[in-house]
Amino acid sequence: MAQHPNDPSLRSWIPVPKDSDFPIQNLPLGIAAWNGEPPVPCTRIGDTVVDLSILADSAMLDGLDIPREAFLAPHLNAIMAHGKTAVRALRERLSELLRADNTSFRDDNTLREDALLPLDQVVMHLPVQVGDYTDFYSSRQHAYNVGVMFRDPANALLPNWLHLPVGYHGRSSSIVVSGTPIHRPMGQYKPAPDAAPVFGASRQLDFELEVAFITFDGKPLGQRISTAEAEDHILGLVLFNDWSARDIQAWEYVPLGPFLGKNFGSSMSPWVVLLDALEPFRVSSPQQDPEVLPYLKQGPKHHFDIGLEVSITPEGGEENVICRSNLKHLYWSMAQQLAHHTVNGCNVRAGDVMASGTISGEEPGSFGSLLELSWKGTKPIALKDGAQRTFIQDGDTVTIRGHAAAGGVRIGFGEVRGEVLPAVPFA
Amino acid sequence: MAQHPNDPSLRSWIPVPKDSDFPIQNLPLGIAAWNGEPPVPCTRIGDTVVDLSILADSAMLDGLDIPREAFLAPHLNAIMAHGKTAVRALRERLSELLRADNTSFRDDNTLREDALLPLDQVVMHLPVQVGDYTDFYSSRQHAYNVGVMFRDPANALLPNWLHLPVGYHGRSSSIVVSGTPIHRPMGQYKPAPDAAPVFGASRQLDFELEVAFITFDGKPLGQRISTAEAEDHILGLVLFNDWSARDIQAWEYVPLGPFLGKNFGSSMSPWVVLLDALEPFRVSSPQQDPEVLPYLKQGPKHHFDIGLEVSITPEGGEENVICRSNLKHLYWSMAQQLAHHTVNGCNVRAGDVMASGTISGEEPGSFGSLLELSWKGTKPIALKDGAQRTFIQDGDTVTIRGHAAAGGVRIGFGEVRGEVLPAVPFA
Repeated sequence: MAQHPNDPSLRSWIPVPKDSDFPIQNLPLGIAAWNGEPPVPCTRIGDTVVDLSILADSAMLDGLDIPREAFLAPHLNAIMAHGKTAVRALRERLSELLRADNTSFRDDNTLREDALLPLDQVVMHLPVQVGDYTDFYSSRQHAYNVGVMFRDPANALLPNWLHLPVGYHGRSSSIVVSGTPIHRPMGQYKPAPDAAPVFGASRQLDFELEVAFITFDGKPLGQRISTAEAEDHILGLVLFNDWSARDIQAWEYVPLGPFLGKNFGSSMSPWVVLLDALEPFRVSSPQQDPEVLPYLKQGPKHHFDIGLEVSITPEGGEENVICRSNLKHLYWSMAQQLAHHTVNGCNVRAGDVMASGTISGEEPGSFGSLLELSWKGTKPIALKDGAQRTFIQDGDTVTIRGHAAAGGVRIGFGEVRGEVLPAVPFA
Repeated sequence: MAQHPNDPSLRSWIPVPKDSDFPIQNLPLGIAAWNGEPPVPCTRIGDTVVDLSILADSAMLDGLDIPREAFLAPHLNAIMAHGKTAVRALRERLSELLRADNTSFRDDNTLREDALLPLDQVVMHLPVQVGDYTDFYSSRQHAYNVGVMFRDPANALLPNWLHLPVGYHGRSSSIVVSGTPIHRPMGQYKPAPDAAPVFGASRQLDFELEVAFITFDGKPLGQRISTAEAEDHILGLVLFNDWSARDIQAWEYVPLGPFLGKNFGSSMSPWVVLLDALEPFRVSSPQQDPEVLPYLKQGPKHHFDIGLEVSITPEGGEENVICRSNLKHLYWSMAQQLAHHTVNGCNVRAGDVMASGTISGEEPGSFGSLLELSWKGTKPIALKDGAQRTFIQDGDTVTIRGHAAAGGVRIGFGEVRGEVLPAVPFA
């Protein structure tokens, strides 16, 4: 349906700064706290946070098949338990309440004072209580780059890679919200290929540029979700930094996969951008050759055109954008990932997090990790202050941002940011 | 302290059948329900289940630093939140209430009628709400066997294996309590080494004989638990069947580890045997060569002598014990596993499950999986009915049992049992 640019449903009575990621067309969900109160579900418009617990208490969210108590919970899981249709109706209700010509909220002074908060006065929390966290490996260029560096350029992709979305289970306890500092991990690594392993602080600390989706409840154990059904089980997306200690990972990972090289921390952006808000940015999924097995076949547009960038800010220094990538670079779609994940009967639950794996495009400047950007440390990255990076140094802040834009509308994620602190000394 | 065999603290006024796994010296914790009531924390003595919610409501569990509400929760996590010392005091209180010469519970007819239930009238639930599930790979013989079969007999153990307890993250959503049937998974596998992958029901479904420990809360993200501290963060042990689809696993697992070959289901025994109950069964930890790095060094007796066995019962047929192993066969102790898991700052939480990996002894009859027992399908196992097994067939029930015995006292786990149902047809 074509919308006139002056349509009041496309503007809000709450001011939205130019180039904001959060116009009325976004309306993400998150969990925020202020004044020491318990955290509650919120949405965000421009730089204003809207407290959904207050709206619910004022009967503004009645009739949505979501009970008021769900808006008092410290995680979105209680809202998500009511499923995609209910959450879609919630977003539509919020859009209605916030559109330029709606007066019921705008003209209620008390409600406005109680429910609206400046962004800089709130503390964001993890949006969901994470059940299980799965990390995929769905960027072909990333898998290829890693294969070239660590195995054989002539056979860089492993034989299974083009047949299934490779994934593995990660650690949910150490997923933290944007802004939480991460200590450099200590662990075992081999200082040289023929040396004995040593114990120490990782010397190859890296980020991984990822986007994660968060699931609704799936089906009971033993049943499967098809590619056609998959997006009905997806709430939305967040930016995700899968911090990685390459030296620890390289020594430990055979034969059962990454463990301590990853589970010291993963950082998530606080606002879940709902899949419905990203509809305008669907793009064709890539042609897959060899043809995939029937359970992985999908409709034409299960990919999303969302620009992504990564920066490094040394302690007290200037920000340096070192990578520009795009979510559309993935080979395997979220629908394929979720269909594969459940084809053996594995059950998913509201609040599960499924990350994309490092998102690397074909151009070197679009590679989504320092491992690739510095080509295993052989091509240092120059920073504005004259310093170089092959891996992350203590005091560096890594920031991932992402947004989509089309037809004058910009929908974004804000950022996920984390500073690396020195290793905790061994007592 | 030596105890006289007629010491009334060593006997209960509740009858305990000969050879029961559950004398007064055990007193495990579990979650049980009956009559359609919500599940609550319980202990077990002989074939009697003791409802702790009723005892708490009768003030019998007051003064333990565990609030009464914790005994109404459907998982043990609420009790465990109060830590090792509080749970130790709870077990001591239960021992006091149930000893032969204690009259306060025994002679209270109403309380006895309300709080005691015959085992066959209760439905057992998962004892804990599992946060993260980690699976180790800590039996040297198992790692060696797998290395011989799939790689190179001359270099069967991978280079890292003797330096660190290899582990990986598993799926917590699909952990089920004993008795829950498991559908044979479908997935991708290669019917022959040079063939294209196909989709179908796994043809190589296997069990893995494991024992898992359940953690208390650990330390905040970024801090580590030493081997000396580790057991203070362990509630107790359960039997664990890490069902594995070998054909799916073999095709998918490079380079990031097992995924759909494992996450279709894992089965756990319902009674958590507290570490305190297993003190009499400590044995010396094996000499480790090469010497381990300092953070993995430990005191002399962090292993436990607990006999384990696995049986297969074909549908409507006789039970066949096909494996007898022992928890003491592990190379890496639980203390080392937990110290390694957290040495990079990874946080653990009450209710996390950490499984041992398949426990294989040196004798072929002690190998803890069909993969090893049938040596990759080349040596079929003969059953009493004349049939053979290389892998699990539909209708087979796999049962793992385990107990320790010394000085006339037997402490056991009961069993973890699961029947394999046919694959769910693809719609």
